[in-house]
Amino acid sequence: MANPILVEITRGYLVESVHRGSVAVADATGSILFRLGETEAPVYPRSSLKPIQALPLLESGAADAFGLSDEEVALACASHSGEPMHTNRVAAWLTRIGCAAGDLACGAHAPRYEPVWEAMVKHGEAPTRIHNNCSGKHTGFLTVARHWDVATKGYELHDHPVQRAVAAALGELSGLDGELAWGIDGCAAPNFALPLSAFARALARLAAPDALPEPRAAAARRIVRAMTAHPELVSGTGRACAILMRSAQGRAAVKTGAEGYFAGIVPERGLGIALKIDDGAGRAAETAMAALLDKLGLLNDEGGRAMLRAPVTNTRGAQVGERRPAPALAEAEIPRA
Amino acid sequence: MANPILVEITRGYLVESVHRGSVAVADATGSILFRLGETEAPVYPRSSLKPIQALPLLESGAADAFGLSDEEVALACASHSGEPMHTNRVAAWLTRIGCAAGDLACGAHAPRYEPVWEAMVKHGEAPTRIHNNCSGKHTGFLTVARHWDVATKGYELHDHPVQRAVAAALGELSGLDGELAWGIDGCAAPNFALPLSAFARALARLAAPDALPEPRAAAARRIVRAMTAHPELVSGTGRACAILMRSAQGRAAVKTGAEGYFAGIVPERGLGIALKIDDGAGRAAETAMAALLDKLGLLNDEGGRAMLRAPVTNTRGAQVGERRPAPALAEAEIPRA
Repeated sequence: MANPILVEITRGYLVESVHRGSVAVADATGSILFRLGETEAPVYPRSSLKPIQALPLLESGAADAFGLSDEEVALACASHSGEPMHTNRVAAWLTRIGCAAGDLACGAHAPRYEPVWEAMVKHGEAPTRIHNNCSGKHTGFLTVARHWDVATKGYELHDHPVQRAVAAALGELSGLDGELAWGIDGCAAPNFALPLSAFARALARLAAPDALPEPRAAAARRIVRAMTAHPELVSGTGRACAILMRSAQGRAAVKTGAEGYFAGIVPERGLGIALKIDDGAGRAAETAMAALLDKLGLLNDEGGRAMLRAPVTNTRGAQVGERRPAPALAEAEIPRA
Repeated sequence: MANPILVEITRGYLVESVHRGSVAVADATGSILFRLGETEAPVYPRSSLKPIQALPLLESGAADAFGLSDEEVALACASHSGEPMHTNRVAAWLTRIGCAAGDLACGAHAPRYEPVWEAMVKHGEAPTRIHNNCSGKHTGFLTVARHWDVATKGYELHDHPVQRAVAAALGELSGLDGELAWGIDGCAAPNFALPLSAFARALARLAAPDALPEPRAAAARRIVRAMTAHPELVSGTGRACAILMRSAQGRAAVKTGAEGYFAGIVPERGLGIALKIDDGAGRAAETAMAALLDKLGLLNDEGGRAMLRAPVTNTRGAQVGERRPAPALAEAEIPRA
């Protein structure tokens, strides 16, 4: 059966395009409090996996050994826009661990923040691997390899100790046994596929860390604290994660993933949220996450609420339609645990 | 009922994202030879409407009165990339009809061809309305207004004689009576909503113009000739329309539209093709049109065939998945009339 329509785009009086998808909201006991659509098929969380990919960095003691700041922990969880606030920090961190841009396994791509890219074009500067939106995550992987004194070369391969530690943490938190299916992410690191329900459970366990053993509990607390304290470092100027985390005022950590994934961690209610838009559209994932946060009372400023019903404008700046939650999502309620 | 999945995107061994949509293929008698999904609900063809929006330019005699070349007719049907081959021709055409960039109702936006945009950024040049991908269509509208000696100001409004002529042509060719629902397109011009089946019929009538009265028959022939002779003027360097029309070697005219629309005109079989991806994804519309052209024996070079199964690559350039027609589309056959 097809997943429900979660988001619709109007033009004039007609709905022009629709986005189907699925949602799972779990608590730390593993209960699924809310679901829409198919939540048991394996899906890649893509960059929504980053808060979990950062766990070995904290749990191994590497972050403390190298004196990482919360800003650097936020960057380890980031899909950043390649602005100087990101690239300068990643470059300094790389130097501190005795590595360089060439050690990053991710490829170079243009910064996602247009003014920065235009300034680089003006000055004839080419993007480097540090501009890759995943460079913080990769620097985190390198930091663990350094701390463990294992080879940094090949840190992005599925059988490298760092990636095995990521897979183990994900398996334990999600409650899934055995090897997960995996594919190669845009940044060349492995990405593990799991059901939305299982990923929501893993996120809920980060949201309610008191039930976790140490050092995982402390790692979870620090990751959520770093993300919520530095929304722009996790994403960039004007990006959805920054807008939504600012609007939640420290009460939720959210993380986009490519191909329409979006993850949320809500400590005050011990909830994990995982959603995937079937067709991979980021615009719809943003609207759907805004709708879910709104249901939880976590949209607390105009910026956040504006993502709920976003105007569609033409090249003259006139509003010609809107992007909004479709009835299946708009009318749903998330029950209290 | 949900539309069928037409295109799928894989990563590793999993299908990561899917695109649903619908297709109608009609002949000039109005028969629907082939359909997939919902084809009777009104949908905006967006820029796929351009070949029909160009009809008044030809039928009114304006094109002959102003000595338009086939290149200019192709630009009237274009969603162009704002490359010099486009902007220089539109600028000269505007001058010839006694108009200027400020008379265009479309807004300015950056050229879609990255090297041109980067060169502009380097030289501190801002995009003008002539860079708008629809500037050729708008110059066509202005040309008709000039020829009819009616106000050029307001030519983009629904009740202006030029837009009434577009609506009349679309109504006649599609066989639909009465006023069509309409919305405002990205370029500020009205766009009319109609069923995929009806738009496929309209396109089929352009494909088999001998059955049309004059001057429409001649107008249809010239539009198809201009589009197929100048694929890059209708789109731009490396764009889907250019690649597919080059691959069809003059035997098909195709035109993308925003939000996942794609239209095709196949004169040798008198067919019109209209397809819409539910979620508005251009990547899926391109794959679906490539699949339909392939079924009609119209992919005749590597460039076209490469659009059938396009690699998904990561930022290191490695292939990590592919975009391909899903079984419902891959296994379907278009019957002979």
